[in-house]
Amino acid sequence: MGARIPVDEHARFVRTLLSGLGARPTERVALAEALGRITASPVESPIALPPFRNSQMDGFAVRAADVASAPVPLPIAGEVAATAGTPAPLAPGTAVRIMTGAMVPEGADAIVPVEDTEPETGDRVRILRARTAGEYVREAGSDLAAGADVLPAGVRLGSRHLAAAAASGLTALLVRERVRVAVVSTGSELVPPGTALGPGEIPDANGVALAAAATATGAVVVHVARVRDRVEQLRAELDAAVDAGAELIVTSGGISQGAYEVVRELLEPLGAWVGSVAMQPGGPQATAVYRGVPVLAFPGNPVSAQLSFELFAAPTLRAIHGLPPARSERMPLAEPVRSVPGRRQFLRGRRTDDDRALPVGGPGSHLVAALAASDLLIVVPDDVEALDAGAMVDTVDL
Amino acid sequence: MGARIPVDEHARFVRTLLSGLGARPTERVALAEALGRITASPVESPIALPPFRNSQMDGFAVRAADVASAPVPLPIAGEVAATAGTPAPLAPGTAVRIMTGAMVPEGADAIVPVEDTEPETGDRVRILRARTAGEYVREAGSDLAAGADVLPAGVRLGSRHLAAAAASGLTALLVRERVRVAVVSTGSELVPPGTALGPGEIPDANGVALAAAATATGAVVVHVARVRDRVEQLRAELDAAVDAGAELIVTSGGISQGAYEVVRELLEPLGAWVGSVAMQPGGPQATAVYRGVPVLAFPGNPVSAQLSFELFAAPTLRAIHGLPPARSERMPLAEPVRSVPGRRQFLRGRRTDDDRALPVGGPGSHLVAALAASDLLIVVPDDVEALDAGAMVDTVDL
Repeated sequence: MGARIPVDEHARFVRTLLSGLGARPTERVALAEALGRITASPVESPIALPPFRNSQMDGFAVRAADVASAPVPLPIAGEVAATAGTPAPLAPGTAVRIMTGAMVPEGADAIVPVEDTEPETGDRVRILRARTAGEYVREAGSDLAAGADVLPAGVRLGSRHLAAAAASGLTALLVRERVRVAVVSTGSELVPPGTALGPGEIPDANGVALAAAATATGAVVVHVARVRDRVEQLRAELDAAVDAGAELIVTSGGISQGAYEVVRELLEPLGAWVGSVAMQPGGPQATAVYRGVPVLAFPGNPVSAQLSFELFAAPTLRAIHGLPPARSERMPLAEPVRSVPGRRQFLRGRRTDDDRALPVGGPGSHLVAALAASDLLIVVPDDVEALDAGAMVDTVDL
Repeated sequence: MGARIPVDEHARFVRTLLSGLGARPTERVALAEALGRITASPVESPIALPPFRNSQMDGFAVRAADVASAPVPLPIAGEVAATAGTPAPLAPGTAVRIMTGAMVPEGADAIVPVEDTEPETGDRVRILRARTAGEYVREAGSDLAAGADVLPAGVRLGSRHLAAAAASGLTALLVRERVRVAVVSTGSELVPPGTALGPGEIPDANGVALAAAATATGAVVVHVARVRDRVEQLRAELDAAVDAGAELIVTSGGISQGAYEVVRELLEPLGAWVGSVAMQPGGPQATAVYRGVPVLAFPGNPVSAQLSFELFAAPTLRAIHGLPPARSERMPLAEPVRSVPGRRQFLRGRRTDDDRALPVGGPGSHLVAALAASDLLIVVPDDVEALDAGAMVDTVDL
């Protein structure tokens, strides 16, 4: 085994390996399916917003000149509702009852809100307050001109973006495809969760966890498999992953210094880098390209695998899918900790009520229940052997 | 119209109206479908974690007593891989090659990492360093005892929780059902997005936007409909929503003081509250219970409808689905603003590069493109008429 690679250097290397994922293919998706997707190009509105001049209030459409000397009574010439159709033009010296959103009749140039009017005898209304031309009138295109961009490229679609697209009459949007990820767990000790365990067998936690972690970054999981420590089984599943369109394959197990290191055995002859990163847990790491598809090979211990995904895969995937990076914060340690100099240690911990970082469950990479009981990672710097309670540490939200 | 209800009072009222949603029915979902769901009860692990005593390192399983006087050569009696099966007990005075995660043979009580050993002539290994009993041995149950809770009730399932459930051999979890929401847009001017517009017609943005907003809070949308200003159409769609199992119905339009207020017309005789909240946009509001299902009736202007959902529906739905509330922050205004005293104004705005709140697009409730171009709401307090640039305001992330 060569020297241990610093965490940041390996992270940079993986970022480069995955940089090809950034140039996303595009697809058209219906608005109802587009929440959370990223626009692939600026989106033009084919119509003006609003599409026609309409009333901002329930009230009366008038000519401003006719109400300049308010209070003034005006005959009510009709009514315009918010509905299909073009209202008749407004005759001078008259008012038309109008609803919010209804088209302002030709000839009218102001709206008098109903609260500034009083009913009069006959079919007349008393306008109590003068209004200048344009008041309470929403001009066509005052929100957006026809042909203008209603959405930019690269926006992560929330409900308000979908509202604007729908208001523009659009039914679908061109978005970036989500990254297609495959997950392959390796290990002859692994059985599917739910299987009765024989001696030496354990349920595979990595398949479920890495698939869920990929989904949480916005990726779509196209293949999940579990193989024994047999090179041909692994090769078959990597082929299946590539055939399923995977753009990134993550594996767990089979990369350390023992015998039966199936990932190493298959991928090293194909040019994989297999080595050790100066971190704990998660030291053994490998990267490869299999039939053109980048492979991130993580250690098999569930905590190591999950931490590796978080550190090396998630940042790129989150960025591609428009999600913010994991939140990090500095806070004081609630308890002293020990570490191994020369390795960055990622302890699992919990935020206390007084915002200190409390280690949970010790440093062992098999402590999968303790990880589930944690809500943050505590980062102990590479060259530190021990930290006292109260020492400030970087933490990363889980 | 009665007096305007303060925003906070209406929000409290709606919270109470929706409080019945908090007692959620439960359902069993497969681990692969459970990301983001909320556990309905504590989850017990049927097995210990780890299920058996296993090695933390690649190396040699030994009796600590046999290596106390290291360096010492030991005959290699065999090999234990991480695979199914029980290894033979360790004979005194021998070592067994062992892989990470492999079952520690009966009789062995310590693991010597491979890096603390050297090959010897014959089938022997030289142990370079003494180890005390228990070193590098992961005891069965050291992460979690069999029968102990691997997850508490009420946790929002992330990948690490699913990993722990899978490691416990579980295949499905009891979670709370997501809230079933129906969306009904009203307005005779509305046509489906994509329809060629006749005069006076506009594409319905609220159906898409409110359904997406509900989905973003973790709810599941079971019915989306659009009706003209016809009471019987609305009644039919509310019935369809209830029949589809909706637990909350949100409507847009039809609740203000004009004629053709279809929501008001249907629901007021059934005991709806229809009134005005001291806010802009979104003043007109109504609440009802239809066939036992709470109805939040919002104004029809898209900005008003979306803001109403955010203020009144989203907080309860987010809390039920374990999502944090919208992030709010105080920051200085980038420009002066005017407001209407007696109403809380929610201006749309954008965070500038130097973290000031810049209003976008004016106060009009029809500015749906401007809302899409915004990333925060600027809250102008109820009794303020104007604020200078630099004044500190509360903002809410969109």
